[in-house]
This record gives sequence, C-alpha cells and structure tokens, in this order.
Amino acid sequence: MNTFIDLRSDTFTRPTAGMRQAIAAADVGNAGYGEDPSVNRLEGEIAEYFGQESAVFLPSATMAGQVAIAVWTRPGDTVLIEQYGHDYYFETGAMAAVAGAQAHLLAGHRGVLDPDDVAAALIHPENPYARTALVVLENTSNYGGGTVYPQTTLERIFTLTRDRAIPVHVDGARIWNAIIATGADPGGLVQAGGSLSVCLSKGLGAPMGALLLGETAFIAEARRVQFMLGGVMRQVGFMAEAARYAFRHHFERLADDHANASLLAEQLAGNPHIHIDHEAVQTNMVYLDMRGGAEQAANLVRDLDAHGIGALAVGHRVRLVTSLNVDRTDCEQAAATINRLLEDT
Amino acid sequence: MNTFIDLRSDTFTRPTAGMRQAIAAADVGNAGYGEDPSVNRLEGEIAEYFGQESAVFLPSATMAGQVAIAVWTRPGDTVLIEQYGHDYYFETGAMAAVAGAQAHLLAGHRGVLDPDDVAAALIHPENPYARTALVVLENTSNYGGGTVYPQTTLERIFTLTRDRAIPVHVDGARIWNAIIATGADPGGLVQAGGSLSVCLSKGLGAPMGALLLGETAFIAEARRVQFMLGGVMRQVGFMAEAARYAFRHHFERLADDHANASLLAEQLAGNPHIHIDHEAVQTNMVYLDMRGGAEQAANLVRDLDAHGIGALAVGHRVRLVTSLNVDRTDCEQAAATINRLLEDT
Amino acid sequence: MNTFIDLRSDTFTRPTAGMRQAIAAADVGNAGYGEDPSVNRLEGEIAEYFGQESAVFLPSATMAGQVAIAVWTRPGDTVLIEQYGHDYYFETGAMAAVAGAQAHLLAGHRGVLDPDDVAAALIHPENPYARTALVVLENTSNYGGGTVYPQTTLERIFTLTRDRAIPVHVDGARIWNAIIATGADPGGLVQAGGSLSVCLSKGLGAPMGALLLGETAFIAEARRVQFMLGGVMRQVGFMAEAARYAFRHHFERLADDHANASLLAEQLAGNPHIHIDHEAVQTNMVYLDMRGGAEQAANLVRDLDAHGIGALAVGHRVRLVTSLNVDRTDCEQAAATINRLLEDT
Amino acid sequence: MNTFIDLRSDTFTRPTAGMRQAIAAADVGNAGYGEDPSVNRLEGEIAEYFGQESAVFLPSATMAGQVAIAVWTRPGDTVLIEQYGHDYYFETGAMAAVAGAQAHLLAGHRGVLDPDDVAAALIHPENPYARTALVVLENTSNYGGGTVYPQTTLERIFTLTRDRAIPVHVDGARIWNAIIATGADPGGLVQAGGSLSVCLSKGLGAPMGALLLGETAFIAEARRVQFMLGGVMRQVGFMAEAARYAFRHHFERLADDHANASLLAEQLAGNPHIHIDHEAVQTNMVYLDMRGGAEQAANLVRDLDAHGIGALAVGHRVRLVTSLNVDRTDCEQAAATINRLLEDT
Repeated sequence: MNTFIDLRSDTFTRPTAGMRQAIAAADVGNAGYGEDPSVNRLEGEIAEYFGQESAVFLPSATMAGQVAIAVWTRPGDTVLIEQYGHDYYFETGAMAAVAGAQAHLLAGHRGVLDPDDVAAALIHPENPYARTALVVLENTSNYGGGTVYPQTTLERIFTLTRDRAIPVHVDGARIWNAIIATGADPGGLVQAGGSLSVCLSKGLGAPMGALLLGETAFIAEARRVQFMLGGVMRQVGFMAEAARYAFRHHFERLADDHANASLLAEQLAGNPHIHIDHEAVQTNMVYLDMRGGAEQAANLVRDLDAHGIGALAVGHRVRLVTSLNVDRTDCEQAAATINRLLEDT
Repeated sequence: MNTFIDLRSDTFTRPTAGMRQAIAAADVGNAGYGEDPSVNRLEGEIAEYFGQESAVFLPSATMAGQVAIAVWTRPGDTVLIEQYGHDYYFETGAMAAVAGAQAHLLAGHRGVLDPDDVAAALIHPENPYARTALVVLENTSNYGGGTVYPQTTLERIFTLTRDRAIPVHVDGARIWNAIIATGADPGGLVQAGGSLSVCLSKGLGAPMGALLLGETAFIAEARRVQFMLGGVMRQVGFMAEAARYAFRHHFERLADDHANASLLAEQLAGNPHIHIDHEAVQTNMVYLDMRGGAEQAANLVRDLDAHGIGALAVGHRVRLVTSLNVDRTDCEQAAATINRLLEDT
Repeated sequence: MNTFIDLRSDTFTRPTAGMRQAIAAADVGNAGYGEDPSVNRLEGEIAEYFGQESAVFLPSATMAGQVAIAVWTRPGDTVLIEQYGHDYYFETGAMAAVAGAQAHLLAGHRGVLDPDDVAAALIHPENPYARTALVVLENTSNYGGGTVYPQTTLERIFTLTRDRAIPVHVDGARIWNAIIATGADPGGLVQAGGSLSVCLSKGLGAPMGALLLGETAFIAEARRVQFMLGGVMRQVGFMAEAARYAFRHHFERLADDHANASLLAEQLAGNPHIHIDHEAVQTNMVYLDMRGGAEQAANLVRDLDAHGIGALAVGHRVRLVTSLNVDRTDCEQAAATINRLLEDT
Repeated sequence: MNTFIDLRSDTFTRPTAGMRQAIAAADVGNAGYGEDPSVNRLEGEIAEYFGQESAVFLPSATMAGQVAIAVWTRPGDTVLIEQYGHDYYFETGAMAAVAGAQAHLLAGHRGVLDPDDVAAALIHPENPYARTALVVLENTSNYGGGTVYPQTTLERIFTLTRDRAIPVHVDGARIWNAIIATGADPGGLVQAGGSLSVCLSKGLGAPMGALLLGETAFIAEARRVQFMLGGVMRQVGFMAEAARYAFRHHFERLADDHANASLLAEQLAGNPHIHIDHEAVQTNMVYLDMRGGAEQAANLVRDLDAHGIGALAVGHRVRLVTSLNVDRTDCEQAAATINRLLEDT
C-alpha cells in the first residue's frame, strides 16, 4: 500500500532498489559517438526483440514519434492518423512545427482505425492536393482507453499501405501492454519496411527514454534528426541500463496492471455518476465518462487528490492508469473512495 | 449560351471585353516598392469597403490565407478551423509547412462552426499542451455548400474569441457571395483586430489575385511574409486594375449566379440518384450527393464532360458552381443532361 | 529622354505599347488546372530555349528560387551558396523559413564561386554533421556587380557536383544578361539533372513573373510546392503573354543596357570620391564604391533623387542598373549629375 | 595515467565513483509534471548562481541553444552569429529546420565578435529585408580555440543590442571554463533580459544534460518548445543529481584542465609541422594548425589513435581538449607522441 495512490499516469513510476543498483553499476561512454556500451546493448536487444534491423535511444517517446514523422515526410505532406492520436493531439503541434507535416484525421473506434477508412483515404482522396506520406497507428491507444489493435486489423493496414508504398509508423509507447494483453508476436506488430517507437518510462518503469526502431537506413536518417532536435546525449548509459533492467523485470508484471485496471472498472461499474466502456478496458487504463461533464470530472480529480489519490481529467472523462506504482489494495481503496465521493454529490 | 458549360468552379471565369480594355489601359509601377498606382488603389478601395485600415494584394487566395496564419501564429501553435476548411483541407499542407501551425478541427454544420464548440475548445481544452493562437472561419464555406455564416453566429464567435485575446481570420474567398446573399454590412464580417482575406478571381471574375486585410501593423507584417513566400510582384497593376473592374462590374451580378444555382437545385430535386441538401444552396454552389457513391460521382463527371458540361467530383459528391461563365439557359441544359445521364444508369 | 531617370533596378521597367497590345489580346484560361494556353506556351518555349524538359510559371523570381530549394532539400540540409547570393541574402530568410534549409556560405570572387572552394566544401567538410543537398549559383551575380560565370567555371562546378550526386540550382534571374554578354549556349548554363530559375520582369521588362525549369519529375514536384506557397494563379496568361512579348522583343536589346552601363562606368571612372571595379562591369550594373562610406552613399542617393535620378544604396556602395527605362542620353546625364554632386561635397 | 588518453573532447568525461553514488541515491519524480525534486533543485541552484529568474533542464546543449533560438525568433528572422558559432555550424541545420531562422554570419577574431561589427550589422544593414531578432555569442568559443569573451566586449554588445531591443543568447556550453579562466562574475555574463545556455556534460563531467536560463516568461515559453521537441523526460533526477555533484566537485578543477592545455601548447610550440596560436590557448583547448593541411591532420589523428591517444581533426586543424579524463602525465605523453609521430613524416 502506498501513501499516495498515483493513478494519474504510468509515467510516474518510481525506480525500484534493483533498478537503482543497475543504474549505479552501468557501463557508460559517449553515446554521441556510439561509444556507450549500455545504450548500444539496449538498442540491440530491443531491435532484436521486435525483429528490427536497428534502433536508436532517444530522450522521450515524443521525440521518437516526431523523429519518425520527420524522416518519413517532407514539408506539406499528409500524415493519416486517428483524430486523437498522441503524435497529433498531445505533442504541442510538433508534427507541424518540426516536420511541417499536416495531419489528416480519421475517426477510429476506441482509437483503433478501420482498415476500410484508411483504404478509402488513400484510394479515393477527396482532396487531390494531399500527398499521404505516412500512416501512424497508436498501439495501445491512450485516448481510446488503452485499447489494442487486433492483429488482423494491423495486418490489413500494413498490407494495403505497402501496396501503395506508404510506410506505417506504429506509435508503440505502450506496445508492451498490447503484447502482454494479447500474447502477440512482437515482430508482427511492425510493418515490414515501416517503423516503431516504444516508450521505456511508461509501464516498464524506466526513468526516461524511448527507442525508435526500423531498417538500418531509416535509423541512420533518424540519427541525423535526433542530432538536429538536440536528442544526442552523452554518458546516458545510466538511463539505458535502467531501461534494460525494466525490460527484464517489469515487462511480464504488466499483467498485474491489467488485472488491477479490470478490478477498478468492475468496482466502479455500478456507479450511477459514471459510464465506463468496459470493452475498452483492455490493458492498464480505465476512463470514467462523467455524466456530470467536464466540471464533475475536474471536481472528482480535485477531491481524489485531497484523499491522496491521483487521477487525470481529460475533458469530461477521468483517466485512471495502473502501473507498478499501485497494487490491488490501492486500487480497491481508490474505487471505494471514488464511489463514496460521488455518493455525496 | 456557351460551347462548354463550365460548372467546375468559379475560378474558370473568363475576362470580358470591358475588363480587357481596363487591363490594357492600366497605370502600373513597381509594386515591390509600393509604386504601382493600380495596386495601391485596389488595396485602398477594398480596405475602405470592408472598413479595414490596410490591405495587401497577393497572387492568390491561398497565399492570402497562409500569410494570415503565418503572421498570427508561431510554430507549434494551434489553429481552430472547421474540419474541411479550405486553409486546412485544400492547401497542400501549407499551414504546417509554412507556419508550422497545427489545425485543431471542429465539425461544423454545413461548414459553419457553432460558437459553443469554439468556446468549448478554448475554455475547456482537452489537450493542455495546445495553445490556440487563431480561429479561422470560411465565409462562405466551400465544402459546406457555399453556405453563409449567420451574422449572429459571426458576432458570437468574434466576441468570445476577443474576450480571450484570440484573433479570428475570416477566409472570405467567396465573401462577395455572402454579402450579396444576405445584404450584410461588409465591416461587420470582420473581427475587430482580426483579419480577412478575399479572392478576386472567383465569383468576381478577375484573372488572378487576392487581398489580405486588417490593421496597419498586421499588414506590415504580412508584407514581410509576402516577400518571404515570393508573393511580391512588379508591374502587377494590370491584374489589380482587372480586379477593380471586376469589383465595379461583377459584384452585384452575383445575384444571378445564386439564382442559377437555385434553379439547378430545383431541376435536380426529384432525381432519385441524387440527394441535395437544399438548405445548403445559399449562394452559387450545388453539391449533388450521389447515392451511388464516389464511383457514380466520378462517372457522372466524366459523362458530363463528354457532353460539354464541366463539373467536379469531391468524394461521393459532384459540385456544380455557377459564375459569369454560365447563364440560365446553360444551367437548364446542364440539369437536363444530368437527369438524362442518370436515367440511363 | 525620360523625366525620371530610373537606375535603381531593372525591376522598374515599364511596359511598352506593343506589350500592352499583346496583353490585351492574350488567350487565357485557368492556369491552376493547366488550361491557360499563354502560360503553357511560355513554359514550353522557354523550356525549349534552355534545353529543359519542363517549366513552371511563378509570380516571382524569389518564389522560383525558393521552390527549387524546397524541392531539392529536406529540413536541416545544407545549401552551398555565395555569401551574398540573392536566394540567401535578399529573400527575408525564406530558405530557412520555407525549406528549413541552412546556407553554408562561400566567399566568391565578384560573386562567382571558385570550383576549388566548392570541391573543398564537399569533399573535406569541416563539419561532419552538414549534409550538402544543393549548390546554388547566381548568374549573373547581382551583389558581385552583374558578373557572369565563365563557362569553364560553370562546367567544372557542374561536373564535380554531379560526381557526388549533388544538384546545382542556377539562380538565373539575370541569365539573359549573361547570354547576351557572352553569347553562351543557353543549354550549357544548366547542370544536367539540375535546375534553373529565370526572371521575366528584370531586364526583359515583363510586368511580373519568373520560370523554374528542369526535368519533368522535378517540375511536377515544384508544382506541388507552388500550390503550397500560394503561387497558383488563374487567368494569368495576360502576364505570360507579356513575358512572351518581352522575350521576343527585349532580349537582344540587353546589349544596349550593357553598353550604357559601360558608358556610366567610364564617365565616372575619374571621380575621386568613387572607386569602381571596372572588371566587374560586365552586364547592366555599375556599383560605385563610395570612399566616404555608407553615409556618403545614402547622401548621394538622396541628392540624385532630388535631381530626378534613381539609384540604390547598398551599404557603402551605390548601385546603378541600366534597363529599357533609360537610354544613352539618360546615362550621360546621370553620370554628369553624379560627378557634379560629388564635386560639391 | 589512463589507458586511452582521450583528448578528442570534454564530452567523453567518465563519471567518478562519487558521482555514481550521487546518482544511485537521487530523489526523483516525474519531471514532466515538475515533480522531480533533483531536477528542480538543479534548475534553482544554477539559476541562482547566474542571477537568473528561472531555468529548465534539457537533454543536451544543442537543444538548449535551439530552444532559445526558437523562443526568440519567428520563421524568416535573422540571427547574428559568428561564422563558426556552434549553434549555426555544428548543429545539423537545426536553427533553420526547427525555428526557420536564418543565420547572418559575422567573422569574429578567434571566435569573438567585435562590438563594432555587431553594431554595423544592426544599424546599417545592407539587406533591408532582414529583421535581426537575436544575437548569439559563444563563450568560450569552441572553434575559436576555447577563447573567452573579454568582459568589456560582452558589455558593449549587451548594451548596444538592448538599445535596439534585441536579445542576446549566450551559448555558454563551456562558460564554466570562461569563469575559471577570468574569475568573472557569473551574473555579468548574461544580458539583462537575454538568455544563457550551459552544458553539464562537457568540462563539468556530468553524464548528460544542459540548462537554459533566463526570465520567468522566457523559460515558460522554453518549456513549451522543450515539449514540442521531445525534450521532456520523466524521472531524470538521476542525471540532474549527477550534474549537481559535478557542479560541486568538478567546477574548480577546470583550472587543472587549463594548465594541462597550456602544457600541451608549450610542449608542441617548437614543432615545425604545427602552427599554434598561443594567444588562443585560454582554457582547455589547443588547436594544432597542420602545415600539411587536412590530409596531415587526418593522418595524425589516425596515428595517434593507434598509439592510444584520441584527438579530433577539424579541417586542416587537430583539436586537443583537456578534461578530467586526462592528467598532466597524459598530456606530456600525448605531446611527446605527437612530436615523435610528426618527426617521422
């Protein structure tokens, strides 16, 4: 049980004692010259895990996604992306500012794009001037509720885009959760010739960092953009080693986070102030659709904070995210508190 | 009656004999140094007409809109715009490429934004990282069907944005049609402190050019961006003089175009292959929603072309635009041809 | 003899009666759809003249150069250019703002780059992170004094860059003057596989416009960027026809401008307040290096203006440009006035 | 004595045992939400040290400089900077790609700009279209030889720019060396109202990171750009704590690096193959100007590497940088090896 039950985000995960030891003992060098052995090991291991030729370690998942977009596009190009996809909706306009690329938005179902919609946008574009240079899929989809792309959906999109020589970038900030939830083959989650970004500091619980993965030529170009954006760090093997530790020790346990999210959803299911889309509770998130709208959402978050429980308001919804910061008891307590607080309203 | 009945767009309007005379006699100078008297007159007259301090003559309405966006925003800023607004949807990603600005899309009703939706996006943004720097309204709305912003809607949006110190740019490529349709006071169509772009080569029928209007300081900055984008032309008074002629001679007659569009809509009203949103037929456009989808739309356009009639396919819709290129007889013939062609399918 | 003797720039040239007739009679259409016959003819004729596959008509030479840079580069790429090259020095930062490209500056001799310096920058770059994507040559060089690239210099640069698969864009805003001055074969002034921009409204005296020329695929991409920057105009055949007239009637007469520039240089040669680099007087420009510096330059320009003579101050230099605006008598009068004005100082 | 004597750069510094302990014990939190106590402490302490209101911790000095440029400028603006200034010359075109800003280059003396040159560029610009939005000074100047800006020079530039309301950004990647070399008051090294970036992973020897400092409003805007570029990290207090350790333990000892650089310069002074500008040896760098040019420079670096000594070729120069990686004995050995290797040539 924790003092502060932090359900705001899995980006708040705190390092364990084991991880601290791994950090302290890390073998480091100048990563800007390719001389940091821990960074090199991490890049190699994760690339191999996903069946990719190469990888580059970056300060954040935001940079990983934006570097991918910058490499795949030219200014004025169109990026097909779900209307609340993180690379579009939550990154301060980076896609436009850095790459000069414009989002063409499609409405997904729980954040998951329909291959037919992607096909229609590519094959019968309404706008003859748009040149679609990239499709971005977010797996799992944060805004969609932590939802997982079904394998057949992924494969249909990978195929129909490849037929038109359009790369797919998978924003896999939480792809670890997708793998644990479905048992998918990691290599099957990436388009052949496309790219993947993964975050190390969400569910895995590393202090910082992300990886961008793809073919060797793609990663070479990504390293140029990394340099340009100021993403080259020096003896950052400390953080890479923390990520390697996280990958070894915190990956399988994501199943616990998923169980805890289910528990939260169940214990809040009957609450008359809340609507929960239970089919969307597939990994480590629960979105509470507040019947009282954005104001009730903001109030609930404020009241929970006063009771030592962290949650996040997203418009009229309240987001709860499980992670290694919270255990089953924490979640039970959080659910009980939410139910009690809303009773009083 | 014309040989080719061109309903594709009002950008196809051909110069009249009177306009050719005006062009030939134009007084010109180096506009890059502010020395073209015809350009200066045009800028002054149209600025005065709309009650604006200043104006700048530009090669196209696309440039006028994009210069406005570049002046009002910084890279990474958010521009609130209808999901099919021209400055976003039909300008080759210019907003992202040139200004580095990212569109935040709202769904309008027939292309017209609801002030409540604008207010919600500004006051309760879901995305805490977005900084909305500009709202763009398109009046009339091309994709919405040539629809006009009701004056009260405009005023509510102008007010709620001013309260938050956010400028509004009115994309008035076809604002002439809005004025003719509603008799609105031109000065009331612009936000105080905001900006307006107008196209001279659509319904007015000038060969080329557009104007961007606003306060003196705004236009001074717009001239910088004009220079940067290569929009400075030299003895372009020839084209400015054509636009002055168009403003004097072709403005009132837009009422004919509106009547012709209504006629088209009526004569196609009973066609079972077509759905027409008659309430959207407010100015010089009719969109035919083809029950047979994008393929039927493409086929109809192809068949019409073979019969000497120009139309444009936009996804599953066919767009007909009236202009000084076509008269009442042309429209009757076009409607009859469409009805006959679809009978055979 | 003219009332105002305008030696400020060849961009001030006024249309002749013959040109006005050509404009009034122009056959025009919607150039945005490739349907303007005059624009198409102009593009075809000038492309053929320079032995290029294709061409696109644009509002200005600035846009022509910036479109070329945007097509040849990606954000962060390096463009090798002379330190006062127009595309870098006089275009409001467009190279950075529009293409995101960074200039790598080389010091030329009278604006003409030394092939050895280009080779050194490409083969032994000091900066390992720079990726040179384009070399830009300005022929004639404005800042260099209207100087012409010797054919052997051009060819050496074309060859050494092609060997490294780097395109050359020739900024030929005043290439007409280079051709008249040297009798060069027009096709030999462009790198095979590279690009060329030419201005129509400088020495040729068309009211406005420029062309960008190159291979078909390059021009196709240039048309995308043209659209993005707002360079698509409609019935602009009026201006294209003026340019065709200018090409037929004002090209050969550039020899007169060159003779007039020589005359100016000679008649000012003995003036003790002025240094003239006579070897740089190769076409239609004379730069007066004022021994009294920037202040004396500004004063002379002001005093000349009061005497009905236009000149331009560029730092400590005064620029005189001959064009069809001025004849031999005008130049004699200008020289006499300059000599007299400086006597009094 | 070290196995490999690394004089390539002070970015290769390896963490000490004490630093590893500080890292392992760091108090961390989610820096993306301002909740990392170590990051907050570091930002506060360094801001206070330089007399600045606020600071933001970033992944690299490159990002710190580019964020500053992006905050101070708009696309198309001009940045006055020394012709080999790091933010221009060594950052992959970031200034153009990210901010859309264009460098206006001035030639400095040993990398140090002359206030008269800055004044001339601001007061009598040759190019009337350039709008100078920022002046960047690099102190110490890397390319200039690790040279320090004299205090009076700094103050003159700070004053003349403030008089014209133009901010100065000081690229203080190695400002620590400047302070140790001159004993300057840290607060006097920043323009009032301007900004400063400092690197933590060069001479100070922290594993990674940099800080950008300035007024509160400036840093608030910098945090937006940080987010946009993907510079937000999570539990990065580990690295901030390493930097705090470095600031406490490795700052004063930079004097040793300076002494070692002087020693290198002295011991190589008589070498006939090398020219050394001894007046430029002011901090921790020695540039060897190879009389045999770029080829000899490259060969020497290769041969040194084979003898376990790291150096860097920069064109025809070889750069030696002292840091906590090397001691006096290392430097003596390196000098002896260089002298011996060049004897054989």
